[in-house]
Amino acid sequence: MNYKLIFKTLGKLLLLEAILLTIPLIASILNKENIYHAYLIPIIILLAIFFLTTLIKSTNNKFYPKEGFFVVGLTWIVLSLFGSLPFIISQTIPNFFSAFFEAASGFTTTGATIIDDVEAIYKSILLWRSLMVWIGGMGVLVFVIAILPQTSSRSIYLIKAESTGPSVGKLTSKTTLSARILYLIYISLTVILFLLLLIKIPFFDSINYALSTAGTGGFAIHNNSIAHYNSTYVEIVITIFMILFGINFNVFYLILIGNIRKALKSEELKVYLLILFSAIILIAINTLTLYNNIFTSLRYSAFQSASIMSTSGFSSTNFDMWPEFSKWILIILMFIGSSAGSTAGGIKVSRIIIYFKSVLKEIKYTIHPKQVSIITFEDKPITESVSKGAFSYITAYFIILILGILLISVDNYDFTTNFTAALSSISNVGPGFNLVGPLNNYSMFSSFSKTILALIMITGRLELFPILIFLSPKLYTNH
Amino acid sequence: MNYKLIFKTLGKLLLLEAILLTIPLIASILNKENIYHAYLIPIIILLAIFFLTTLIKSTNNKFYPKEGFFVVGLTWIVLSLFGSLPFIISQTIPNFFSAFFEAASGFTTTGATIIDDVEAIYKSILLWRSLMVWIGGMGVLVFVIAILPQTSSRSIYLIKAESTGPSVGKLTSKTTLSARILYLIYISLTVILFLLLLIKIPFFDSINYALSTAGTGGFAIHNNSIAHYNSTYVEIVITIFMILFGINFNVFYLILIGNIRKALKSEELKVYLLILFSAIILIAINTLTLYNNIFTSLRYSAFQSASIMSTSGFSSTNFDMWPEFSKWILIILMFIGSSAGSTAGGIKVSRIIIYFKSVLKEIKYTIHPKQVSIITFEDKPITESVSKGAFSYITAYFIILILGILLISVDNYDFTTNFTAALSSISNVGPGFNLVGPLNNYSMFSSFSKTILALIMITGRLELFPILIFLSPKLYTNH
Repeated sequence: MNYKLIFKTLGKLLLLEAILLTIPLIASILNKENIYHAYLIPIIILLAIFFLTTLIKSTNNKFYPKEGFFVVGLTWIVLSLFGSLPFIISQTIPNFFSAFFEAASGFTTTGATIIDDVEAIYKSILLWRSLMVWIGGMGVLVFVIAILPQTSSRSIYLIKAESTGPSVGKLTSKTTLSARILYLIYISLTVILFLLLLIKIPFFDSINYALSTAGTGGFAIHNNSIAHYNSTYVEIVITIFMILFGINFNVFYLILIGNIRKALKSEELKVYLLILFSAIILIAINTLTLYNNIFTSLRYSAFQSASIMSTSGFSSTNFDMWPEFSKWILIILMFIGSSAGSTAGGIKVSRIIIYFKSVLKEIKYTIHPKQVSIITFEDKPITESVSKGAFSYITAYFIILILGILLISVDNYDFTTNFTAALSSISNVGPGFNLVGPLNNYSMFSSFSKTILALIMITGRLELFPILIFLSPKLYTNH
Repeated sequence: MNYKLIFKTLGKLLLLEAILLTIPLIASILNKENIYHAYLIPIIILLAIFFLTTLIKSTNNKFYPKEGFFVVGLTWIVLSLFGSLPFIISQTIPNFFSAFFEAASGFTTTGATIIDDVEAIYKSILLWRSLMVWIGGMGVLVFVIAILPQTSSRSIYLIKAESTGPSVGKLTSKTTLSARILYLIYISLTVILFLLLLIKIPFFDSINYALSTAGTGGFAIHNNSIAHYNSTYVEIVITIFMILFGINFNVFYLILIGNIRKALKSEELKVYLLILFSAIILIAINTLTLYNNIFTSLRYSAFQSASIMSTSGFSSTNFDMWPEFSKWILIILMFIGSSAGSTAGGIKVSRIIIYFKSVLKEIKYTIHPKQVSIITFEDKPITESVSKGAFSYITAYFIILILGILLISVDNYDFTTNFTAALSSISNVGPGFNLVGPLNNYSMFSSFSKTILALIMITGRLELFPILIFLSPKLYTNH
């Protein structure tokens, strides 16, 4: 392991976090909140560490996959640790484990909170939460790659480990350039969303909801989330943007370079929208008895389905009161999540497609052993290693979920709460059902369970394997 | 598709069912129950169909995998349909869907019941339930292969489709012989269990519990299952035999031929016992506050862990009252199930071992790409296709479970009930939690949900793929 280079890379990330912290610092000054030290102290610590890492003389510039995975795993943990300092110092969340949970929830774009009354806390703290989601959304590493020039061999491994799903990073062959393009699309969409929100809701609200929607995080600045506005306009705008941020950014890139035809041919896009609209219609019909009006039930169903499938987690109604059938559809959406190469979490639509195509091929082969069929995804053949990768990923997802539920069940909360809390965490959604339902939060969990859930969020956000490798003792024994 | 041969094979199976039905018929006569017609009518129908199938002139004797899978899928459905007739005619279960559920639950060795008061029903009906479990346990097809001589090419495909896990049928190269050996071991163990039970409990009880334990079914003849006796002796005997019936029958075969050393070297056996004893100890510690005595908590924990892991489903206490941690351990045991080549259900320990070894290899490879490592299971290398098979199986298991829960959630029962009912069905366990907990039953489900759960049981019992193939439209279009 090339620890020197790892520390140097981490140092740059911490410098970035210090720069980011100046934004809520300025907000707190403008707002006369008298909690400047909550941001200044972490900034000073982060800068000090950064300067220490610049002193490291690194002769070996080689960055192998193991270093890549190690850095990525470490990054989310370290950023969350320092990101929790403003919560602790400002006394918004005095408990360390709760503060770590909140920061990890932000950087992983989960949006689960332990704050009982978000309307009572400092505005600059609200902004810091939204900002963490926004940064987390695109992946701090893509961010770093776009800003800090890296050697090409190093950045490939970094983006490999952090890629959200099987198909990111194919935009262009140059990683730095592709990261810049992703970043540009991301910023543009956020700004458009901000301007559209500004038409109806205040400036501060628009910033926060734009940042939180872009990162598919779902941190709200009101206790009843988007339901606060009770505005069809706001719900429609956010619904559309939640759907957009769940689309593979390759599609936007193709549209950007004028290749709209190829963009619309994307299999993943079609299946993603098909699943989403099926869910919307099924829930709208199932909740009809509740709302007595197809437009009302469609309005709530569309918002909530988009919110859960894009793993944002905003709520426009208390969906915990819905019939079990609708609730289970939301749980299926939590499992699936959105497209690879988007800011959303979950197993990803592409893996689901690859899984079903592979299984159908197996069944066909059993029935007609003499017929050879070739299966493809996005015009590329699904090789044995691609389908095996999807299979092993989905299995690992379920196993980590099951073990996560076991660990948090020591708190002895009910089955529904434990199951949906862990699922919502690994898929980076936010709310679940029952005690972690849309009107509740995660504050009742023990420090142990909060830590476990935070680690599950990070594992889910980083597509499992970087964390599994990070935890592997093999990494540290040989070199 | 060679439909003629399929009908002829099914005909033989129905003859077998007619012969089996004479056992409860005799019991009802001896017991003067006056429901002879409940057995006589099905016997006459089955014999009539059998004679009709003997009239079919089959010129083509070729049996391909598709026919094998088709017969296996059809067998469990048809046997359950006719097996439900005694319930309906005797008015024990007048509703057709409920009766089908009960019969499918028997033949799949699930042991889930919809009968509210089992102590109030005819003894011959109780015997028929236990008998279905016992027959289902070894697989009706192995049964048929052992009794009715088949052409060798045909029987290989049959046993392939029905094999419980990846490693059955390797006992000897001759399928018919291996089926006879399996059958001999099965009968011997059942008889020994019967005799051991007879020491403490009545003759009729001993027969029923011996049959139901051997098939890892868990149908009880008392409303509070094994807790009825409140006897440590009975619990210990049944615990030991539930554990035995969860072991791969290859192990018994090896012991039988004197190769005890090789038998004890079985990896699956070791991991199976390791998981079981870990569960027993964890639950015993977790429930200590409930029972205030380590021996009491060990007694209940050992019985319940063995009962759930062997997918029997007997209860010696109301484990629905246990802390959430213990309950979740039971759910994990429901997922895992026991060994391949046993009468138990679940994903199977062997697949779990193959999964973890494959993933560890992948992680090792990422860290040290230059080191080539070969992984083995039971001294044989785990090939790419073996690990891919395990991955796709586990994923299919979760997907069928999730879709099953969605379908039964239309009844609008709670999350815990739906989840554990579907899981318990696919793993052929029997009880779940909450409304399907050890003191409750499945009677409240709608006819639709009962049918879905029965089909899930059959899918789980037949290792998923025969049923997926059975449902595939491709099977019927080409030939």
